[in-house]
Order: sequence, then structure tokens, then C-alpha cells
Amino acid sequence: MNQKFLATRSRLEFLELVRQFSATRSEQSPFDRALHRVLAADLQAGEDLPAGDRSAMDGYAVRAADTFGAGESSPAYLECVERIEVDTITQRILGPGECAWIPTGGFLPAGADAVVMVEYTEEIGAETIEVRCSATPGEHVMFRGEDAAAGQNVLTAGTRLRTQEIGLLAALGITTVPVFCRPRVAILSTGDEVVPVAASPRPGQIRDVNSYTTACLVDAAGGEPQAFGIVRDDLASLAEALGNALENTDAVLLSGGSSKGTRDHTVAALQQLPDAEILVHGVRLAPGKPTILARVGGKPVLGLPGQVGSAQVVMLVLGQPLIRHLSGDRDAFDENRRPLRRARLCRNIASKQGREDYVRVRLEQTPEGPLAHPVMGKSGLLRTLLQGNGLLTVAAEYEGLLAGQEVDVWLV
Amino acid sequence: MNQKFLATRSRLEFLELVRQFSATRSEQSPFDRALHRVLAADLQAGEDLPAGDRSAMDGYAVRAADTFGAGESSPAYLECVERIEVDTITQRILGPGECAWIPTGGFLPAGADAVVMVEYTEEIGAETIEVRCSATPGEHVMFRGEDAAAGQNVLTAGTRLRTQEIGLLAALGITTVPVFCRPRVAILSTGDEVVPVAASPRPGQIRDVNSYTTACLVDAAGGEPQAFGIVRDDLASLAEALGNALENTDAVLLSGGSSKGTRDHTVAALQQLPDAEILVHGVRLAPGKPTILARVGGKPVLGLPGQVGSAQVVMLVLGQPLIRHLSGDRDAFDENRRPLRRARLCRNIASKQGREDYVRVRLEQTPEGPLAHPVMGKSGLLRTLLQGNGLLTVAAEYEGLLAGQEVDVWLV
Repeated sequence: MNQKFLATRSRLEFLELVRQFSATRSEQSPFDRALHRVLAADLQAGEDLPAGDRSAMDGYAVRAADTFGAGESSPAYLECVERIEVDTITQRILGPGECAWIPTGGFLPAGADAVVMVEYTEEIGAETIEVRCSATPGEHVMFRGEDAAAGQNVLTAGTRLRTQEIGLLAALGITTVPVFCRPRVAILSTGDEVVPVAASPRPGQIRDVNSYTTACLVDAAGGEPQAFGIVRDDLASLAEALGNALENTDAVLLSGGSSKGTRDHTVAALQQLPDAEILVHGVRLAPGKPTILARVGGKPVLGLPGQVGSAQVVMLVLGQPLIRHLSGDRDAFDENRRPLRRARLCRNIASKQGREDYVRVRLEQTPEGPLAHPVMGKSGLLRTLLQGNGLLTVAAEYEGLLAGQEVDVWLV
Repeated sequence: MNQKFLATRSRLEFLELVRQFSATRSEQSPFDRALHRVLAADLQAGEDLPAGDRSAMDGYAVRAADTFGAGESSPAYLECVERIEVDTITQRILGPGECAWIPTGGFLPAGADAVVMVEYTEEIGAETIEVRCSATPGEHVMFRGEDAAAGQNVLTAGTRLRTQEIGLLAALGITTVPVFCRPRVAILSTGDEVVPVAASPRPGQIRDVNSYTTACLVDAAGGEPQAFGIVRDDLASLAEALGNALENTDAVLLSGGSSKGTRDHTVAALQQLPDAEILVHGVRLAPGKPTILARVGGKPVLGLPGQVGSAQVVMLVLGQPLIRHLSGDRDAFDENRRPLRRARLCRNIASKQGREDYVRVRLEQTPEGPLAHPVMGKSGLLRTLLQGNGLLTVAAEYEGLLAGQEVDVWLV
């Protein structure tokens, strides 16, 4: 395919193309090691949860009708017929005019349909309880099956498991869960000037930074980064390294050099591989324009810009959604999960229309609220990344942002 | 100490008391396994970064003075005396009227002080370059030492390492770093009704949920959760289990029953231990009031409420800051790192003055912007946690929030 026929794409067009890739196969995981993993199948409750009606408070289990009209000035008087233990279900059936002491979490006796908080009661004599409020049926009761009913679908495939979902699995006794495998993501660094971190660079050489920053971002997105080292920047070496990486992993990230020459090599090397198609060559992003997406034998290859700052932005807006999608996450492309902070912009930011801009900012907390200071500097420097703690998006349809404007800063 | 003399505390008073605990000891870590770890010592750069002046663009290295006044209608003409390779530093010194082709990342030759982007140039004949813009000194140059100067403190103790800090370590060849140990956090569940997740609960019994949800939140805060199982709810068993956990870990979380009786047992058991002091007994939070903080032999013990929803809130607002503090994180108490989303509140929320309220909400994206729907339900239920994806804070000085009001939702 001739490179000049390849149109550049917008970010959304890029993400649309990502949808064609399939999620990894699935595996079984102990539930208590499945935090942040993605469910590969729907899960059903095997039992009612709670298993019966439980009290949400310390107090007295009552028949609500027995307390109707009761209040501070007109208390009801009930006979306390039992003190319920937290770990047993009583056989007693509560009759009219009767109540039972119940601790938080205790199971209600049959006949009872509400709980009166202990604060609204008083013990009058040995077995008589004064109730100074009117309970409504169901008050302070967690009903049988209210969390989950036996047989009900409680979690669906594609759900990323949060703390609360792990809690539900524990409650239901589901100790093993089907999850998508963490996609194995190969990371290749190219560039004749790049040497391993443990090396002492000769004049002109630099240490490999992108392999490590990219690995961090792969890990944060739920992938399993696998370092494939530094590749010489010639066609044959690149094609061989790509082929090898593709054979052993689910996706390949190529952290390329930044000059036009090295980018051309990447495209040429990809085109040499069997069953390869360049899907995207250039994205209307700044930084991040020289991004490449290819499909080789059904697997994605993402070519990242060489500048460390640009590579980070591309990973955040394109690479991480790709990895989440390969993980089976149905919210892979949901931008509403980004951690944002509202702030006031300190100065004007110019931007080209037709291109989405990501501007690095430093958030400062002031008595007048948070301020966003743009951190300027070349995208090959680490300094701007270290000083910044957020990104600002200037949408493609805008020509910039104005000082004083309220903006949403994406914490990174 | 008599329990009735123990005042309840506000959240900020609680966190102030947490400062008395010390960070864990430190250890050496490979830099590429140190993401999210906290530096235990200042780090210096051993060399200049970059090691020399580097080009940020593909183009020509020039002496800026040679291009002054150049433009579209009045180009300057320079002699191209060398094509610089990306991985070597040339020995040539650029003379007046001379320029050199340079790729992105290439090191500038001596004499050059700026780079002209290739887009503003044209090759006229074999060695003559037409330059159609005026370069300012330093333009498109990343200067020697701009990221870090040899000997300079580049990172300070207490910094939690993000992707960009890992990148700086790689660039400087710092392959091993001193970090604070992840605090080992014991998790104990109490309650006679609680059985292990793998068990089939008899009537009246429930499975242990809090051990697992708490472990997730410990892990997310950088701690190392260690399960110490379920303890019978009597004084002797509790005191023994607490003593054992304290001997083997850096902090203890006690996920207690919710009834007043079990809470009293916790305090009594703590008081039996040598060198123990109850620091907090009750926090002006809802949910989360029955929270306990003690210091036993210099280590913190946090008693969590038994209801799963309350325990999660207490972990988020008190437990996680505690664990981050034990990790040596200087931003342990910084609320400005919370991921927030601005939304419009759907209905009024009432709240008691003098108490900080956390209200569970579900964010809904609508064409008019995000809406926050309060998710009501008993705090012992998992359903409210599963349906919700955020928390709303009602500050102690407010009596509630109004429908239609803009609010900041904390994504959880």
C-alpha cells in the first residue's frame, strides 16, 4: 500500500478502528486477586443475599402495626420475648404486642417487619419496652435478596471489578471468577542512538526512557508489559523484531525514533510482514501526530512518537484505551472515568483548529481555588512532565483557551 | 482510661493524630519496579541531562545570527557542510554561513545555537540550503542540563514515583532506588456470625466481606494487606489476635461488628494490650461514626465500622491517608489528588450540621452534562455500593445540598 494514500485520522476515528480487535482469551482467577480485572462471563447469584431479613441497627424487632401512632408523648409498650443473637435465626414467631432485642446484622424473627432503633426505646421493668416512635414496615431492615436474588445475573461480562464487586463475590461465596487474561504487550524501542539504561552512553547516545515510561502506562491500563529491548533502526532488524514480538504477545508497542526517517522505516517494516495493514498513519493530535496503527495477523501494532512527552500523551489517549479494549473492558473508551479537577486557567493558550491539543499544566492550590499553569517546553524534555501534574484538552473545534476560563484538568 | 472521657473527633483532627506515626523502614528497589512507590532519600543527577544541546526537530543546525531578517520573501542561503547522524557528536565546528542537517534528537555541532525546521528550508543545488525564516538563538534546542544538571537534587524523599519520575531515573541511569517499604497491614475480621468465604453459612451466619474489600483499599493505597482471618468476638480472643497481628505487621485494621456490644469489646481488648492508647473513639462522619484509632507500641490500630459501606468510606477518608503516611508519602493527606467529576445534583440532600456526610451517588451522562443521582439504601447493603460510582461530600458546616447545585463527585 502506498503511504501517501493513508489519511490522517482524528482521535475518535482512531478509537473506532481499535474496536475491530478482539479481547484476549479468558482464564480463571481467585476472586481476591481479581481487583481491576475484567469479567469474561456473566455471574449469577447462587443464593439470596441477604439470606433473610436482617436488622440495619441495634434495637428491637417489632411488628410495625404495633407501633402505629406511637411517639414521644404517646409511647407504645411491647413485651420483649427474646434477645436475638447475631449468629442465629430464632425459631420464635413474633406475636402481636411482642418485640425482640436485635443487634445490627441480626436476622429478624418471623412475624417482625421493622426495627425500632434503641435510641427510641426504654426498658421499663424486666420484659416491657417503651417505644417512642412509630415504625414503618420495612424500616431499618435489609430484606432477603435485596442485594442479590438466587439465580439473578449479578455481574455481567465486560465489568471491570472494583472493590465493591470483590465484596459481592465474597458475600456470595464465589471464590473463583472467569476474567479476561491481561493482554501481553510487547514494548520495542527503536533508534540507533538508544542504549540500555544500565549502559554509559557514549557521546551522541542516550538511554532508553520510553520503554520504561510506556511499560508503566501499559501496566496502569491493565496490560502486562513485556520488554523486547532496543532494535537497530534498519528495515530488516525492525521487521524481524516485530515478527518475533507479534508471535509471543497480544499487541506490540513500538516506541520509535522521532525523525521522519525512522518513522518511514517503521511503516516499511510493518508492510513487509505477512497479513499486515496500516490502519492509521498520523493522528490529528498535538503532541502525537506521528502515531501509527497497524493490524498484523489480527493483532494491533501501535507506533508511538519518539519524544517522551508525546509518547505519554498518545499512550493516555490512544494506547491505554486500546489495552483496556483488549482486556475486554466494555468501558474501554469511556472518557468519563478520567480523573479531572476543575481549575482556572492562568493564561491564554493558542491552538490550531482541526487538531486536538493536549497542554501540560501544573495545578496550584490558592485561596481563590485551583489555578492551572501551562508548563511550556520541548516535548523531548522530561522537565515539563516532571513539573506538570495534569493535561488540558483543547478540542479540535477551538482555536485556544482564554486566561481566566474554567477548565477541566486531567490528573496524570 | 475510661471510655466516656474520649471525645469524638472531626476528620481533620483524626488525620492530625495520624501524623505521629512514623514511616516504615526503607529498602532498595529496581527502578522499573518502583512505580507508585515512595522515595526514601533525595536523589542527585550523576551527569548532565541532556548531555549536550540536542535538536527537538528535523531540520538544520544553524548559527541563528546567519538567519536574522530571513523570511519568505528574503531567504538566507547557507552552506550545508555535514549531515549529522543521530547517534554521534560531530567534531566539526560550524563556521559563519554554514549549517548542518540534523535529525530530531541529534546533538548540535559546536558553533550552532538554533535549529531551523525542515519545513522552512529548501535544498538549492548540492550543498546550498535556502532558509525562509529567522531563527532565534536556542530555538528548537533542548539544552545541555535542561532536564537535570550533574550534582543537582532531582527528586526528593517523600515523592511518590509516577511514570514521569521512572522516566527520569531511566534517563539518568539510576537503576536502583531507595524507597519506603510498603507497610504491612494486618486485616482482622471480628464477629461471631462471620464465616470464611469458602464456607456455606448456616442460618444466621454471613460470609466475611470486609476482609476482602478492606484488602483492596489497602492495596490501592500502597500497603501490603495481610489477612489475619476471623476472630471470635470475646475479649481474650480479640486481645490475643491483636497482639499477634501487631507483632508481625506495621499496622492493624480491625473490621469489627457493627453493634455497640462488639465495638465495646474492641476498645476493651485494645486497652488490655501493653503500651496502648485510644486516640480516637468516634469520628464526626456519616457513615463512619463508630471508628476507633489507637496507638499500641507505636503502631496504629484502626477499628472500622462493620457495615461494608461505612467501612469503605472510613477507609477512603481515614484509612488510606493513614497507609499513605506510613509509606512516607509527603502528600499522604492531600485531598487534591482525589479524582473528581463536576456534576449537577438531581435532588436535595439533607445532612446534619457538625458532621461531615458522604453520600453515595451514581453519575449519569446526559446531553445537558453529568447528573449525580443519590443512591439511597442501608449502609449494610452491597447494592448501594454496586449501583454507585461516586461519593459526594457534605461539609460539616452545611445542612445539606440543593437539587440543581453543581457538586464535585469523588469517583470510587
